Amino acid sequence: MELTAQMIADQLHGQVVGDPHVRVTNVARIEFGKKGAACFLANMKYEKYLYKTKASVVLVNRDFSPKEKVKTTLIKVDDAYTAVALLIGMFSTAKRKKGWEFPHCVSRKATIGRRVYIGAHSYIGKRAVVGNGAQIYPQVYIGEHVKIGAGTTLYPGVKVYDHCVIGEHCIIHANAVIGSDGFGFAPTQDGTYMKIPQTGNVVIEDQVEIGANTVIDRATMGSTIIRKGVKLDNLIQIAHNVEVGAHTVMAAQSGIAGSTQLGERCMVGGQAGFAGHLTIAHGTKVGAQAAVIGSVKEEGTALLGMPAIDHKTYMRAYALFRKSGKKKP
Amino acid sequence: MELTAQMIADQLHGQVVGDPHVRVTNVARIEFGKKGAACFLANMKYEKYLYKTKASVVLVNRDFSPKEKVKTTLIKVDDAYTAVALLIGMFSTAKRKKGWEFPHCVSRKATIGRRVYIGAHSYIGKRAVVGNGAQIYPQVYIGEHVKIGAGTTLYPGVKVYDHCVIGEHCIIHANAVIGSDGFGFAPTQDGTYMKIPQTGNVVIEDQVEIGANTVIDRATMGSTIIRKGVKLDNLIQIAHNVEVGAHTVMAAQSGIAGSTQLGERCMVGGQAGFAGHLTIAHGTKVGAQAAVIGSVKEEGTALLGMPAIDHKTYMRAYALFRKSGKKKP
Amino acid sequence: MELTAQMIADQLHGQVVGDPHVRVTNVARIEFGKKGAACFLANMKYEKYLYKTKASVVLVNRDFSPKEKVKTTLIKVDDAYTAVALLIGMFSTAKRKKGWEFPHCVSRKATIGRRVYIGAHSYIGKRAVVGNGAQIYPQVYIGEHVKIGAGTTLYPGVKVYDHCVIGEHCIIHANAVIGSDGFGFAPTQDGTYMKIPQTGNVVIEDQVEIGANTVIDRATMGSTIIRKGVKLDNLIQIAHNVEVGAHTVMAAQSGIAGSTQLGERCMVGGQAGFAGHLTIAHGTKVGAQAAVIGSVKEEGTALLGMPAIDHKTYMRAYALFRKSGKKKP
Repeated sequence: MELTAQMIADQLHGQVVGDPHVRVTNVARIEFGKKGAACFLANMKYEKYLYKTKASVVLVNRDFSPKEKVKTTLIKVDDAYTAVALLIGMFSTAKRKKGWEFPHCVSRKATIGRRVYIGAHSYIGKRAVVGNGAQIYPQVYIGEHVKIGAGTTLYPGVKVYDHCVIGEHCIIHANAVIGSDGFGFAPTQDGTYMKIPQTGNVVIEDQVEIGANTVIDRATMGSTIIRKGVKLDNLIQIAHNVEVGAHTVMAAQSGIAGSTQLGERCMVGGQAGFAGHLTIAHGTKVGAQAAVIGSVKEEGTALLGMPAIDHKTYMRAYALFRKSGKKKP
Repeated sequence: MELTAQMIADQLHGQVVGDPHVRVTNVARIEFGKKGAACFLANMKYEKYLYKTKASVVLVNRDFSPKEKVKTTLIKVDDAYTAVALLIGMFSTAKRKKGWEFPHCVSRKATIGRRVYIGAHSYIGKRAVVGNGAQIYPQVYIGEHVKIGAGTTLYPGVKVYDHCVIGEHCIIHANAVIGSDGFGFAPTQDGTYMKIPQTGNVVIEDQVEIGANTVIDRATMGSTIIRKGVKLDNLIQIAHNVEVGAHTVMAAQSGIAGSTQLGERCMVGGQAGFAGHLTIAHGTKVGAQAAVIGSVKEEGTALLGMPAIDHKTYMRAYALFRKSGKKKP
Repeated sequence: MELTAQMIADQLHGQVVGDPHVRVTNVARIEFGKKGAACFLANMKYEKYLYKTKASVVLVNRDFSPKEKVKTTLIKVDDAYTAVALLIGMFSTAKRKKGWEFPHCVSRKATIGRRVYIGAHSYIGKRAVVGNGAQIYPQVYIGEHVKIGAGTTLYPGVKVYDHCVIGEHCIIHANAVIGSDGFGFAPTQDGTYMKIPQTGNVVIEDQVEIGANTVIDRATMGSTIIRKGVKLDNLIQIAHNVEVGAHTVMAAQSGIAGSTQLGERCMVGGQAGFAGHLTIAHGTKVGAQAAVIGSVKEEGTALLGMPAIDHKTYMRAYALFRKSGKKKP
């Protein structure tokens, strides 16, 4: 496919600065852009590449003014990062797989929609329901009574335990586990532990993306709930009876202990953690490796540290901490 | 199934306060309990729900006295948390699967016990031994010479490398890996690393539960050992030649480096870690995200921080640290 | 197989102190060594075992002088740790599997080399290329257009997404995921997130080892790159567009955020993390649980803390921090 700068600008509601007729055949990173490529500049760390790139077109934010002379054609857009996503989308044909590969093991009592892809070595249990157009990659396990919504993709090796419910247009990456038993044990008088049966399930709403090797435990009773539009990165732990609010994003290797409720549009940094039984306000921002051990009432709070405190307080205290460790002259 | 409050109290050695004839058909969380449900109250954070619940029965600890008027029937027991587990057990019929699903790949040289469930797409290697009543879910891998004890459950996607030994009545959750190579490399003179062959195995004793996507590496020589009754949560790392003492519990995303020995009945918080070659006393309590870098000699020690120090010392020092970061008025 | 102390010394360029004719049939840990075993002593924590071991031979470093009388035969070598690896290699016959097990699903459009092992329930997609002697264990997924180099081993359950490239003589442990989508989302004006298509791939060079359940995301554009000789432990997160320099080693549960470039021969401790878009100098040493949030320019820098600062500064500051938390007398 070939597009001109003007065609791209029209699609992205952008403005061409330079040659509107220059031709674009692919999208590349600005460090590597060659003739025919469209690149983007959103993070100013990469600005230096703009002045030497061979790329034919660079998408920039509308308020960007170059400090040096620019040879390439610019397209000014409201948000270069969003725009490049749309541009990649224009170049990538939507690749949906079809058909049932062999061998597989699909229960006769399962209900499978139209245009579903079922990869080889996949397993679909009794009374499971798989919606239209779902993409079930090889080696996926779908337990009994599970519901998979229309248009949802389960990448290779995903395991979904009995009775869990996954919404529409979700993406779950390889080897993620949905619905494993919550970590519930009652201490007994002889110092051993008795397993508490985990009889609930996991409910994942629409348009959720879940990273590779992430684990979401089923509820002891009731449901562990991942609300609409949530994005979870890789290797995340979501314990039993947790609820993650709509459009919250969590970076890799973070975790939430049992029964904690995260609000909507929270942002959680990598390797951060939450204790159990907390209520976290909408829009809370938790920095990398922070450990939240108390509920958060005020929306938009920013936290850092172990245990987590106000972000700025932590950074000021840490500056003094660091100073205290410097060798005296 | 339907039980009366009196029947439940008899089973749990409890005492009815209210209507002994009220009927129960299910177990629910106290926030959601409706007519016919039995709930429990163990964590006093949830006490407020007791006074407005529609549940027919609530299990409470024997020493609990309500602050307000209670409309539901109470059953007083020694430990409400343990009791509800038993109660759930009464309602959940023990669901053991049976039969061999197709396709599978089971070596003719493997020894498979009676009443074993073998899920589709599972693999059992030469000279492996699987005990009576074991539950081998789909897409499980059991290497050569592996032993799986009677009554043990391996959920979908579990991988057990050659020569590992798993005891009786264990539960291993989806995509956990048992017996991968330890991380052993010898630096060479040219700055590269040479792999140290990992010729040992993993031995897991009886009644151990291991979470989804947890990894236990095989020993370089000898065995990595998980003692009786240990409970490991999800996404945990157990390195080569580690030994975890009986009835120790570890929360999600914690890890232990090579050759460290944990005592019995230790409690390890989420995202905590241990350096290698340590000896940790029985009953040690390690807080979330703590990093233990020295051996612990005294039983019952409580640790926190990076590196880990006495729990209370850390919290006092952190209070001062936090204060130092507050803006001067 | 049986070797004499002298034969071993000749192979390892070592020097016998004791009986050169004593016979060795296996390698064991020094705590457990019996007659016929060769052991090694590299970490002086274990020196006490030297004086009571029943092992026939112990490998020690050339500069080691025993403090007490030694009954066993010593072999002095330049590096006991490296030497024992070679010795184990002498005793372990290289166990390479062969043949194609059934059932499997291998595309007719895939190119499979000679002497390749293909385990049951494995999947190889269209136009994938698998090099000579590769070991593809059961339940592995190899997507379309993937390249697997000669002599590389993929353990059970490894998933490699479309278009990824893995070099020669690599080892990838069970349930690791290579090429899952990077965590890229553009915030939209209504507070939701739009997925940025991840159209790049992962390139892994030769002689790389990757641990169980580790995840390496594909690049948004271009490649996520793991250079020659890198060793990654279990449960590690490598985000999109990261580059890990040659012969760098990372311990379990560590993670690198998007677009960060690690230099060569870095050493990263367990549970440590890197923010995105950083450049880290060769030979940087990052302690356990450290959080690196700025670029590192000087080679050999040692870091600790959250955020990471000079290792020694951190430890001195932490000593004062700890002191501040002690109870006043």
